[in-house]
Amino acid sequence: MVGGGEGAFIGEVHRWAARLDGEIELVCGAFSRDAENTARTGQSLGLSASRCYSDYNTMMQAEAALPESERMEFVAIVTPNHVHFPVAKAALEAGFHVLSDKPATLNLDEAKALREIVAKSPTLAYGLTHTYLGYPLVGEARAIVDAGGIGKVRKVFVEYIQGWLATEVDNKQADWRTDPARSGGSGCMGDIGTHAHNLAEFVTGKRMTHLAADLSIFVDGRRLDDDGSALFRMEDGVKGTLSASQVCVGNENSLSIRVYGETGGLEWRQEEPNTLIRTHLDRPTEILRASQGYLSEGAQGGFRTPAGHPEGYLEAFANVYRDFAKALRSEGGVTTGIDGAVRGMAFVDALLKSSNNNSEWTEIES
Amino acid sequence: MVGGGEGAFIGEVHRWAARLDGEIELVCGAFSRDAENTARTGQSLGLSASRCYSDYNTMMQAEAALPESERMEFVAIVTPNHVHFPVAKAALEAGFHVLSDKPATLNLDEAKALREIVAKSPTLAYGLTHTYLGYPLVGEARAIVDAGGIGKVRKVFVEYIQGWLATEVDNKQADWRTDPARSGGSGCMGDIGTHAHNLAEFVTGKRMTHLAADLSIFVDGRRLDDDGSALFRMEDGVKGTLSASQVCVGNENSLSIRVYGETGGLEWRQEEPNTLIRTHLDRPTEILRASQGYLSEGAQGGFRTPAGHPEGYLEAFANVYRDFAKALRSEGGVTTGIDGAVRGMAFVDALLKSSNNNSEWTEIES
Amino acid sequence: MVGGGEGAFIGEVHRWAARLDGEIELVCGAFSRDAENTARTGQSLGLSASRCYSDYNTMMQAEAALPESERMEFVAIVTPNHVHFPVAKAALEAGFHVLSDKPATLNLDEAKALREIVAKSPTLAYGLTHTYLGYPLVGEARAIVDAGGIGKVRKVFVEYIQGWLATEVDNKQADWRTDPARSGGSGCMGDIGTHAHNLAEFVTGKRMTHLAADLSIFVDGRRLDDDGSALFRMEDGVKGTLSASQVCVGNENSLSIRVYGETGGLEWRQEEPNTLIRTHLDRPTEILRASQGYLSEGAQGGFRTPAGHPEGYLEAFANVYRDFAKALRSEGGVTTGIDGAVRGMAFVDALLKSSNNNSEWTEIES
Amino acid sequence: MVGGGEGAFIGEVHRWAARLDGEIELVCGAFSRDAENTARTGQSLGLSASRCYSDYNTMMQAEAALPESERMEFVAIVTPNHVHFPVAKAALEAGFHVLSDKPATLNLDEAKALREIVAKSPTLAYGLTHTYLGYPLVGEARAIVDAGGIGKVRKVFVEYIQGWLATEVDNKQADWRTDPARSGGSGCMGDIGTHAHNLAEFVTGKRMTHLAADLSIFVDGRRLDDDGSALFRMEDGVKGTLSASQVCVGNENSLSIRVYGETGGLEWRQEEPNTLIRTHLDRPTEILRASQGYLSEGAQGGFRTPAGHPEGYLEAFANVYRDFAKALRSEGGVTTGIDGAVRGMAFVDALLKSSNNNSEWTEIES
Repeated sequence: MVGGGEGAFIGEVHRWAARLDGEIELVCGAFSRDAENTARTGQSLGLSASRCYSDYNTMMQAEAALPESERMEFVAIVTPNHVHFPVAKAALEAGFHVLSDKPATLNLDEAKALREIVAKSPTLAYGLTHTYLGYPLVGEARAIVDAGGIGKVRKVFVEYIQGWLATEVDNKQADWRTDPARSGGSGCMGDIGTHAHNLAEFVTGKRMTHLAADLSIFVDGRRLDDDGSALFRMEDGVKGTLSASQVCVGNENSLSIRVYGETGGLEWRQEEPNTLIRTHLDRPTEILRASQGYLSEGAQGGFRTPAGHPEGYLEAFANVYRDFAKALRSEGGVTTGIDGAVRGMAFVDALLKSSNNNSEWTEIES
Repeated sequence: MVGGGEGAFIGEVHRWAARLDGEIELVCGAFSRDAENTARTGQSLGLSASRCYSDYNTMMQAEAALPESERMEFVAIVTPNHVHFPVAKAALEAGFHVLSDKPATLNLDEAKALREIVAKSPTLAYGLTHTYLGYPLVGEARAIVDAGGIGKVRKVFVEYIQGWLATEVDNKQADWRTDPARSGGSGCMGDIGTHAHNLAEFVTGKRMTHLAADLSIFVDGRRLDDDGSALFRMEDGVKGTLSASQVCVGNENSLSIRVYGETGGLEWRQEEPNTLIRTHLDRPTEILRASQGYLSEGAQGGFRTPAGHPEGYLEAFANVYRDFAKALRSEGGVTTGIDGAVRGMAFVDALLKSSNNNSEWTEIES
Repeated sequence: MVGGGEGAFIGEVHRWAARLDGEIELVCGAFSRDAENTARTGQSLGLSASRCYSDYNTMMQAEAALPESERMEFVAIVTPNHVHFPVAKAALEAGFHVLSDKPATLNLDEAKALREIVAKSPTLAYGLTHTYLGYPLVGEARAIVDAGGIGKVRKVFVEYIQGWLATEVDNKQADWRTDPARSGGSGCMGDIGTHAHNLAEFVTGKRMTHLAADLSIFVDGRRLDDDGSALFRMEDGVKGTLSASQVCVGNENSLSIRVYGETGGLEWRQEEPNTLIRTHLDRPTEILRASQGYLSEGAQGGFRTPAGHPEGYLEAFANVYRDFAKALRSEGGVTTGIDGAVRGMAFVDALLKSSNNNSEWTEIES
Repeated sequence: MVGGGEGAFIGEVHRWAARLDGEIELVCGAFSRDAENTARTGQSLGLSASRCYSDYNTMMQAEAALPESERMEFVAIVTPNHVHFPVAKAALEAGFHVLSDKPATLNLDEAKALREIVAKSPTLAYGLTHTYLGYPLVGEARAIVDAGGIGKVRKVFVEYIQGWLATEVDNKQADWRTDPARSGGSGCMGDIGTHAHNLAEFVTGKRMTHLAADLSIFVDGRRLDDDGSALFRMEDGVKGTLSASQVCVGNENSLSIRVYGETGGLEWRQEEPNTLIRTHLDRPTEILRASQGYLSEGAQGGFRTPAGHPEGYLEAFANVYRDFAKALRSEGGVTTGIDGAVRGMAFVDALLKSSNNNSEWTEIES
């Protein structure tokens, strides 16, 4: 693991997720640029001091030198955004698979560079932890769309709304997320808008091709967008709206998607992830629920407990790790790989261009 | 009443609304271009045959000729859109107050012409039945915003989503709503998008100044938009998104608004109109409920029954009639009058221009 | 109308309900024991002073003496409970139909006496305004049960929970409801528990035969139950629980029923009356909604507006009046008549006996 | 671990819960009476074959003989109910702490015997996995009650409703749960009613003292109750109702509690465990949400992720394990220990007595 020292949030989440199923063991880490933080973090996690590395380059070299049976199999990247690319590059070049937190890189150029690096290492897996695709009912939504369950898709509403940055916030999490040097050219959209984009493309199975965006900075003194909305178009005539905000007071982590086709619709909300609403022409709306026998086989495989025993964010995250472990065993593919990584950065790139250009319709590179 | 013969929907709604409080009596009508329909409708409503008129011009003349104590006081216009303007004109010019269904006219030019006619008759009231402002908790939302309860407003999400036109629909209601000659230049936006616009302006107390819109026709063969979304800007830096659709399968009449300011937020949904959600910085979200003593005096005056006895669409509509009756007694003003009428048509006009111009930001005339 | 003068609540509700459909006209009244109150009330309702009567006996005689074309057709009783019986008796004996607020009488003996009086006047209709049966989705629930849609019924949960009497309340409504002389032997159960009983019997189509009850007085100084729960048994092996309370802080008017059979279930809540939840073995739960075409014909006939335009308490009450008007035109029967009236009082009688007898199982007279 | 071989449900849940925080390591097990199942289970969990024991007695002896640094610290019991007592006895007598699935024993006599055994080993911890107390918002509810936040408690509604046994079910989980020899004298009440009882006592801080119960067997051929309801009384005048059922079609795992006091109320539902509703006299109802800063310190300590990242059943279960680990480190006490264990069995004992005795009020031994 690179990143995830004391005071970090997402590193601990990755560790819970990796640990849950008992398939993945944390064996080494470069948890912080602060060596003492790394040492304390490693100790509290039961690692031997010798595998708590002062920096990620040292880690790559030292681990690569270990016998294959001992050395780490893959690197989990849980740093602020600007470090994602260099660590991924170093890991892949040292021969390690990579599972990276999102967004993949600081900007689109880096993402394309990363794509070339990945292309050079066909035996290595690259995965991006788009956690929300780990919810089995998101997979069920996609399965229903794929099976024609809502007919040809017409309209998508996707949102990711939070409120925690409605005022000036002074903590480590807020700090780097609002710093262009560490977050990239976008704040809110890079941080959470990318999840909304990823979710919309996944559920519909369509690529977003164009957007017209209006990004905002509502809190005085902030340097990156803390809110934004966009009109978008996808392949095959699908249209939609996407909003992301971190200044909507009282919203916690309200990612939601509604997709409507010619004969039906689907609605899913991350904060009640065990329910999927399905609408029909001329028939009552149905409430699809986690772990029920009427779900597709794929969705059922994503649950750990019987119906009515709520599974949440950590279980979804654990599914991302479990899927990555399966990919390493060649039992499946990563859900979001380098293509999704590049697409996410292209999305952010297009948002910035459009918003800076009077919301002009802008093509998303693919 | 002009319009509202057998087979019409909204005329019956107006009659229920007018009747509920026992303050308004239907005394005459020109219910249909079909004289037999008018006669049957009038008879079933207990009107004397002599006051069931073959057309609205006849009605204006005949009623104006009656002694003041007998003649109608105001005209309710419940026809398809293209007849709103000529009837309103005729009524005002004959000296009658007008309460018109929305949209006020077929297009912005007519609305401006109507504004001039209204201006010439300062003693006559002109009201537009924007029903949804009749819900008392909508008034409560406005009262909270006015009192600074959510701080300076930043972001608005407003939607009006239906599904009943997801397929080709063959009935009288669908027919005129999708006919440019009777509906005006817009279908969905003119019919329901105008309610969303009206609601957003009312709750925030701000005028919408610019929009960038993307209107769609999803059902083959349809001639007017059945879906659309827009980015918008309001006075004082407020931004937002507005969507209206009639092709989102499974949605009934899902008008909703969410407004976020610097220190709080408000959420209201027409399909659960007796609940208003209020969010805060650092405090639990509150559920404000109809008829409760903690509501503002204004909101409390809008309810007829104690808390927990749901009031709905007809009661909201009756409030619009009650407010109009009060205005006629000089006890208050109409909620949406000629200014709101013009603004609604300017909104539709701007939508059409923007959508036809590659979603370019377009100013809304005011 | 007898009762319903200034300061009363339910009289005004009756008037709105009677007025809504334009089929019923209020022609006379004895609104209060206070003649001035009666005069003021009648005047504000547009009645001629000559038909505002000082007391109900005077009204019966005077109206009976009018020509048939002028005299009232039926009497609506909206007084406190203790006056229900004498007015109903006087009206029936004077040859008028009766629509009475519930409970029918002060106690079971009176109810049986009333049954005899009704039996002597086979041409006169007697109806009880069990408002909540006026919600069309309650009728839909019954229709589903009747059609075998949930299989043989097994278990019922029915509740009517309010909070407005959680503290000592000093107003006219609270006053008579907590006075044994005016309310009868039970407070909360007579006032709202009877609705729960009526709803359970209606939806299941089964009679409640036995109960074991525990009634409580939680507020110091109160003389009648303000809370209670009971286990019950119905015909054909159905079991259930019934709770009613007026001291559950924060509850408004939370009447709800859940019924489970061998193959499905139904859930309905008065505060969201336009939704009926239907559960199935091995299939997703369905959300049945007001005014939808998939509902039974009977239910569809109970709505006035299209789906998504919420109808509420007044519309349900108006349906009770409309059904009574139909019964007077011999187009149908009353939903709750004298049998239901007696059953409601027998239910209260059994509750009191059981609760006073250490919650012993007690038979409900039928 | 004793129990939890292939085909079992709850053993896997215990393993996830124990693993999540990285504080507890599974070192040995007697997973099944079938030695091959035990071997396969152990292997899949990465245990050495030498610590996969043929039976629990062998395990106790072998582990006790290991050096302290190597041997297991405590035994997790995840067998069907009838084996809980003998394993707990063997473990305690061999000097091991015990964390047992519930109910603690097959009947009240065994529970009392277990209490004596625990009393003889004051240095050993005994804990019962009442999972639902592991939800932090359940702790918040208790904290609010303790702080007087709802005033003196008056009324409790507690339910645990499922539907999975609505028909004859033929699987391993259903099999032992409906077998008196393995489940004890009660089916549904022993399995899930005990959770409802435990929750009611925990949230109110009051002991349930008396109950009047009506248990049912709805499915033909079943030998133990699959449904039941009870009226109950607690210390200090609290009254309530408790229902548990496994035949309510469409219900998944619907444990819920509503508690009302003199000045407020609390409502919590297991299927939406991250929300706690709080009601007030004369103020809007509040929605308390997981991980928010306004919660009590104790509740905040129970969450792993920020607000809006739903935590569920496994996290609650992990909290039970974490609390047990803390207890072993003398940093706290077990949430439900031997007293709660005995009380749970006394509750079931009283239910059976009352139900067999015409629902007579029956004292719960304490």
